[in-house]
Amino acid sequence: MNRTIEVTGRRRGLHEITSMVAEVVRDAGLDEALCTVFVRHTSAGVCIQENADPSARRDMEAWFDRIAPEGESWYTHVDEGRDDMPSHLKAILTGTAVSIPVVEGRLALGTWQGLYLCEFRNRPSTRRVVVMVR
Amino acid sequence: MNRTIEVTGRRRGLHEITSMVAEVVRDAGLDEALCTVFVRHTSAGVCIQENADPSARRDMEAWFDRIAPEGESWYTHVDEGRDDMPSHLKAILTGTAVSIPVVEGRLALGTWQGLYLCEFRNRPSTRRVVVMVR
Amino acid sequence: MNRTIEVTGRRRGLHEITSMVAEVVRDAGLDEALCTVFVRHTSAGVCIQENADPSARRDMEAWFDRIAPEGESWYTHVDEGRDDMPSHLKAILTGTAVSIPVVEGRLALGTWQGLYLCEFRNRPSTRRVVVMVR
Repeated sequence: MNRTIEVTGRRRGLHEITSMVAEVVRDAGLDEALCTVFVRHTSAGVCIQENADPSARRDMEAWFDRIAPEGESWYTHVDEGRDDMPSHLKAILTGTAVSIPVVEGRLALGTWQGLYLCEFRNRPSTRRVVVMVR
Repeated sequence: MNRTIEVTGRRRGLHEITSMVAEVVRDAGLDEALCTVFVRHTSAGVCIQENADPSARRDMEAWFDRIAPEGESWYTHVDEGRDDMPSHLKAILTGTAVSIPVVEGRLALGTWQGLYLCEFRNRPSTRRVVVMVR
Repeated sequence: MNRTIEVTGRRRGLHEITSMVAEVVRDAGLDEALCTVFVRHTSAGVCIQENADPSARRDMEAWFDRIAPEGESWYTHVDEGRDDMPSHLKAILTGTAVSIPVVEGRLALGTWQGLYLCEFRNRPSTRRVVVMVR
C-alpha cells in the first residue's frame, strides 16, 4: 500500500516524521515489508539521524549551511531566492528517498534513529511525501 | 521485472534518464510497485533533481567540482587520471541507487523532479544501469 | 526474508561486507528480488565503492575527515567525544541504507563494486545491519 503524507507549516530545519510514517506501516498490517519514504520535491530531502539530543540536529543544519552556502558568486540559478540553489545542493547530500525494513510489523529503526524531513527552504509550501509499504 | 539500460556517449555531467526508466515501468505493467535504479559503477551516480531550469544542473556540477576537486596533493589514488578520485567522492555524495514509488502505474515523481545519471568521468565507457520494478 | 548481521571489532574506516550480505541473498533463494542493507545507527553508514585498489578507500576516508572535521569551534554536540559529531555528518554523506537488485539469484553489483560498512567512530560497539531480501 502507499499513502501521501502532507507536511505543512514547517520552516527550514530537520523535522521528525517518524510517527507519521510508523502510522502508515501500522495501517499496512504487514509482518515483513520494505517501507520507502520519498520526497516529491527537489529542495527538501529525507534522512535518518539521531533523535535524542537536539544539539546534533542543530550542528547538522549549521554544517549544511557551510557546505552549501547562500550567495556564492558563481551561482547562476538565483531567480528563486538566496536559499534556493543551496537547497538543491543540500538535497543531493541527504537524498530524496530512504528505505527502511519493516520487521515483525514495525520499522526496524535503531534505538537512537529518527526519520527526518529535511526542509531547506525558508518559507516552503506544503511538502508531499509518498510512503510505500510492500 | 528488471532490465539493464545502457547509457553510451555521454560526457561528464548530469544526464536525464527519466523517460528510459519510465518505459521500463510501463512495460512492467504494475499498478503499485517500487522502482529501483542502480548504477553498476563506482565513478558515476544517480540522483533526482530539478528538471526545469538547466542553470540548477550547471551549478550542481560546479559545486561537485568544488567539494571534490581534482589534483588534491593528498590524493594517493591517482593512476587512472585526474578525474578518477573526484569521481568516486562525488558518487558518495549522490549515491549509487535510488528507489521511486510507482503509484497508479507511474513513477510518483513530483512536478519538477527528473531522474539523472550523474557522470563524473570525462570520457566514460558505456554505463550500465539496472532498473528493477517489483 | 530478513537477517540482522552483527559487525564487531572494526575500527574507524570502510569495511567490506559484500560476502556477508551475499550469503543472506543466497539463503533467501530468490531469483529476482531487492536486497536492502540498513544500518541501525546514526554514526555509521553504508556505501558501494571500488573494491580493487585500497588507495581509493584511503583517500575516501581522508576526504570524509576534511569535509566533516573534528573539533570545529561551532559544534555544540560535543559531549560524546571529538569523533561523534563528525560521524553523524559523514553518515549523512553516505546514507543509512542502500538497495541492490538481485538478478538471477545474485547481487547485481558491477565488477568493481563492493559493499562497505562505513564506521565513523574510533571505538564503536557492535554494529547491527538489517539485510532484507524480498
